[in-house]
Amino acid sequence: VAVLAPEATELEVRRLVEGVRLRGFEASVYDVGPGVILLPSVSPEDLDELIGGHRAIERVFIPDTRYCLVRREVEPSGTAVRIGDVVVDEGGFAVVAGPCAVESREQLLATATGVQSAGASILRGGAFKPRTSPYNFQGLGMRGLELLAEARSRTGLPVVSEIMDPHLIEPMYRLVDAFQVGARNMQNFDLLRALGDADKPVIVKRAPSATVEEWLLAAEYILAGGNERVVLCERGIRTFNNTTRYTLDLASVALVKRETHLPVLVDPSHATGDPVLVAPCSLAALALGADGIMVEVHDDPRLALSDGQQSLTIEAFAQLMDSLRRLAPATGRRIASPLHTLSA
Amino acid sequence: VAVLAPEATELEVRRLVEGVRLRGFEASVYDVGPGVILLPSVSPEDLDELIGGHRAIERVFIPDTRYCLVRREVEPSGTAVRIGDVVVDEGGFAVVAGPCAVESREQLLATATGVQSAGASILRGGAFKPRTSPYNFQGLGMRGLELLAEARSRTGLPVVSEIMDPHLIEPMYRLVDAFQVGARNMQNFDLLRALGDADKPVIVKRAPSATVEEWLLAAEYILAGGNERVVLCERGIRTFNNTTRYTLDLASVALVKRETHLPVLVDPSHATGDPVLVAPCSLAALALGADGIMVEVHDDPRLALSDGQQSLTIEAFAQLMDSLRRLAPATGRRIASPLHTLSA
Amino acid sequence: VAVLAPEATELEVRRLVEGVRLRGFEASVYDVGPGVILLPSVSPEDLDELIGGHRAIERVFIPDTRYCLVRREVEPSGTAVRIGDVVVDEGGFAVVAGPCAVESREQLLATATGVQSAGASILRGGAFKPRTSPYNFQGLGMRGLELLAEARSRTGLPVVSEIMDPHLIEPMYRLVDAFQVGARNMQNFDLLRALGDADKPVIVKRAPSATVEEWLLAAEYILAGGNERVVLCERGIRTFNNTTRYTLDLASVALVKRETHLPVLVDPSHATGDPVLVAPCSLAALALGADGIMVEVHDDPRLALSDGQQSLTIEAFAQLMDSLRRLAPATGRRIASPLHTLSA
Amino acid sequence: VAVLAPEATELEVRRLVEGVRLRGFEASVYDVGPGVILLPSVSPEDLDELIGGHRAIERVFIPDTRYCLVRREVEPSGTAVRIGDVVVDEGGFAVVAGPCAVESREQLLATATGVQSAGASILRGGAFKPRTSPYNFQGLGMRGLELLAEARSRTGLPVVSEIMDPHLIEPMYRLVDAFQVGARNMQNFDLLRALGDADKPVIVKRAPSATVEEWLLAAEYILAGGNERVVLCERGIRTFNNTTRYTLDLASVALVKRETHLPVLVDPSHATGDPVLVAPCSLAALALGADGIMVEVHDDPRLALSDGQQSLTIEAFAQLMDSLRRLAPATGRRIASPLHTLSA
Repeated sequence: VAVLAPEATELEVRRLVEGVRLRGFEASVYDVGPGVILLPSVSPEDLDELIGGHRAIERVFIPDTRYCLVRREVEPSGTAVRIGDVVVDEGGFAVVAGPCAVESREQLLATATGVQSAGASILRGGAFKPRTSPYNFQGLGMRGLELLAEARSRTGLPVVSEIMDPHLIEPMYRLVDAFQVGARNMQNFDLLRALGDADKPVIVKRAPSATVEEWLLAAEYILAGGNERVVLCERGIRTFNNTTRYTLDLASVALVKRETHLPVLVDPSHATGDPVLVAPCSLAALALGADGIMVEVHDDPRLALSDGQQSLTIEAFAQLMDSLRRLAPATGRRIASPLHTLSA
Repeated sequence: VAVLAPEATELEVRRLVEGVRLRGFEASVYDVGPGVILLPSVSPEDLDELIGGHRAIERVFIPDTRYCLVRREVEPSGTAVRIGDVVVDEGGFAVVAGPCAVESREQLLATATGVQSAGASILRGGAFKPRTSPYNFQGLGMRGLELLAEARSRTGLPVVSEIMDPHLIEPMYRLVDAFQVGARNMQNFDLLRALGDADKPVIVKRAPSATVEEWLLAAEYILAGGNERVVLCERGIRTFNNTTRYTLDLASVALVKRETHLPVLVDPSHATGDPVLVAPCSLAALALGADGIMVEVHDDPRLALSDGQQSLTIEAFAQLMDSLRRLAPATGRRIASPLHTLSA
Repeated sequence: VAVLAPEATELEVRRLVEGVRLRGFEASVYDVGPGVILLPSVSPEDLDELIGGHRAIERVFIPDTRYCLVRREVEPSGTAVRIGDVVVDEGGFAVVAGPCAVESREQLLATATGVQSAGASILRGGAFKPRTSPYNFQGLGMRGLELLAEARSRTGLPVVSEIMDPHLIEPMYRLVDAFQVGARNMQNFDLLRALGDADKPVIVKRAPSATVEEWLLAAEYILAGGNERVVLCERGIRTFNNTTRYTLDLASVALVKRETHLPVLVDPSHATGDPVLVAPCSLAALALGADGIMVEVHDDPRLALSDGQQSLTIEAFAQLMDSLRRLAPATGRRIASPLHTLSA
Repeated sequence: VAVLAPEATELEVRRLVEGVRLRGFEASVYDVGPGVILLPSVSPEDLDELIGGHRAIERVFIPDTRYCLVRREVEPSGTAVRIGDVVVDEGGFAVVAGPCAVESREQLLATATGVQSAGASILRGGAFKPRTSPYNFQGLGMRGLELLAEARSRTGLPVVSEIMDPHLIEPMYRLVDAFQVGARNMQNFDLLRALGDADKPVIVKRAPSATVEEWLLAAEYILAGGNERVVLCERGIRTFNNTTRYTLDLASVALVKRETHLPVLVDPSHATGDPVLVAPCSLAALALGADGIMVEVHDDPRLALSDGQQSLTIEAFAQLMDSLRRLAPATGRRIASPLHTLSA
């Protein structure tokens, strides 16, 4: 059972909650949207008597799902998550682009300036790489993050990078504008709890075998921890179909957009593993109502140390941006860009 | 090994084929696109000597797939399939709409005139229904087809209906403008062979467990039988995700568009089982490059005898058509309509 | 709602049904087990008044599933299906063995005598082959069935072969002892209905994307048509795991054994596509409680025209039979064999 | 490229490796089986010249897979992993049993003595529980581990518990006899690397969407870190079939037994989510050639705080042990038990 409080004062909310507790019920307050109170032990019948009509309460709803704080009813108009100077929300369309892995200063800066010129909203790049085989390139680590920060100041683009372990929150904090939870860590609950404490946006990728409920519950962990700046990202689920690397589940994106107030991105690069499919799937994501895409771009995909075969060249990315810009007005959106763009 | 012949005369082709056979090789001629010769037993080395430079030959390619006649190389600009007066091709966007099952004269005519007014291209309706349970409504049979023919003359829309058995080709022939092979019959090879002989377009739905290769090979059966008027239709694959009824595999549609010259439709109604997801998925299909959609519409979904819960109302369908018309110009397409529309 | 009648006379049952109908309810009688009456329109409350205490009624149960006649409650001790002289039931363990496709007289007779010597219960062989590609070997057709009948009289083993079209029931009738419905035709409802009329056992393979419910409903079609001699066969479902050809779903076999009174076989050859995995999976099927296996054996797998790579050699099959015979006593079963075996 | 060294002295191996490196090639030594040298950069042609015939080398093989150290060729007769006093290997059959979560002293001790009396080999119990929802019971933490250690000294059974974070290795070390890596952490590579350094056996559960290759590569991470005491455990994969909770992939267990020298367990409790299916699937696992099972047992499943609906009662577990003991001799195995069992 969840309750929404409006512009109520902190004092009013505290008194209301204490009143509920005095009568023997649990009540927890969360800073989501305007503020939410979860009342897990109150029956629907008692609810009205306990808090009905109280001026600190705007709306009451009884969720029929295991997730509460991420539900659309909490923020019916959708949450806007600001990553650096870029707002990810339902009016814009955020294009997160960059190499799968940061490999060298040259590679990163060439790619970063390339995607920035083409109109990307946010720069992505992996420093700590989760790799299926212990013998593969595992990323540049902190050195990679420092290169990302350099690319940020060079291009003005905010930076996103994957985090795999709670102890990295602190060293990564000043170097990135958003943490990414990778598909393999979507149910690393220690990590999710730690990010709930962090003062930084988090992009939560869907695990390839996660149901929609499991994905939303992963986000719920972070919101329940106090951090509501969460963005979801669909990147393909694992099915019998191996013509594409994973199966991009766009219908679930449309469904999730109704279930939650959080922004939802689509990653066609990992989902399809095929650069030729990235553009049509990106356009489909825009028309469907997704809030952005995350795509892999490499200045020379043939030399990539990780996932090169699925990366776009900078030229192909620029063409994709053109197509997105052509389609966007018909969907009522505009490509998101930093609020204060750098002057050349 | 497949070879494409241009405006070569029939005599030239016959002589060429006879020449190949005289030297001990197999050769079969198919009326696909401008005409194709399959030379299964000729090695790439012999190919040039046998037919290279012959004036009846335009292009030669060596397929690395088990399907040949459906491959894009046969008709690089894409095949246009005419269903009644409507052309399904890459310039247009065909909207096939109507009830899952024909239930009564009133229901069908109300729905048919409703979708026609809203701008549908083609009318669909099931007369012979494949039903999972023997105790469910199995369709009106021939009576349903006669009602469809009546709806066709009333609305001017061509009519599509599912065929489940080869012996129904003949009685259905004059009543429908295209046969639909349902997902459960995609590998009913006797049926596919019989439709290869029929002089009527065929819409081949993808089975929910079919790989892309199996789907294209089902179409190949029909082309190999001599009928090249085939349209493919994706309707969701079966995966672990049961938040939607099936998982709509749009990335495979983008991939199949590159693999084959045949038009490809998307059926978001069966794929999602949820009328609220039909519109976003339809718009995504248009942006992605699909050649049309197939959606279920019922004049009163609550009363439907089959799949009512996934049908659009006529009002919701009209709104979808508005959205499609708004988006279409930005994709370089226009909604397909009968060449000679009826005057009121 | 289903009702079980015991040794009631036909007259008593007829009168009971007429009485129910006179009061305005539907009632259908099925010859399943001792006999079943379906009363779809009677509410649980009326049930007792209508038929409660009638001496023609042994038990009443209210199914919570869409399938009724196949349910375990109808025949709690399990149905024994006789195929030729071999009884497939819960005391025995039927080993159905033979080539994927009948290719020639030599191949079939060598394989048939080989599997018979090793102790197989039933001979299998495909004459009409459903093939994914139109260019693959499609089977010997009626000639293949005649060879199977010859192998039957030579070895004394009953014969099973796949049927793909209702019009083949009649010509196949005298040549085979059981019809097999292949995985691709599990929802070919015209075929299922026709087999419901046939006086011959039917083996229903599970489609690779079929849920347990859909599989049992396919069997329900045949029982509802009047033929209760149905055997189920699991042959692997389609999943993301492509290390084996399909994923053998043994847990569902254990579950189905509780849901239905029909015997259930396991086909590890199609499920795994790997001859080395056939023996361990066969032993697992025996220990799990399956009623038999169906395995592919070829006298020379390297030369097979269809699925050779998954066939056992006759030697490997004989070793498997040895292992099964060693394990069977500990499971309370014995390998099934023809009641009247031929004398050499 | 991997090479096996036999009873070679450390000095010989060191000199051999230095020799290889002097000629400009990479070489790493691993303590797996008798010892393995990986030579990733040496071509097959150079291999013989570099190390061929050297007396420190027993065998050479060139893997065609991404995993090397886990491959069967390294230890053709299979690795025996000792957990406490219990040997998990191909001669025995290890039964790991206990509650999903440690809930209280009473619950744990009642269950532990129950499974010990019935003949279990090893005790399992979760202290840190990964839970899909942030609002579910998250386990007793260190207090749960202390209760497990108490149960161990009471019953003489070694103890297994799940680890979710590298920093828990140290505090858990003296309290458990083996670490379990849960399905959700199978690709938590930081955790795998840390366990590669630990001097304690590790049970690696297969993630529900993991391919066989990904599962074996997770084990490879631990072996590459220097810890070769790894046991694998299949617990069901995620497929469209939701009649059972997951799909138990027994055929892959048979396949993995051929691919790797590591022992492989089967967890039918998580795989099926249905206590009635646990016994048949356990017997199937034994017949198939698995090296043991892991099952959930609760002294009162109706009161369980986690996964109660899938737990066996102690009585049902005792019956399962009887069935396993009856079947085991026919498979050439005996139920594993602590080498020094406690006297009553």
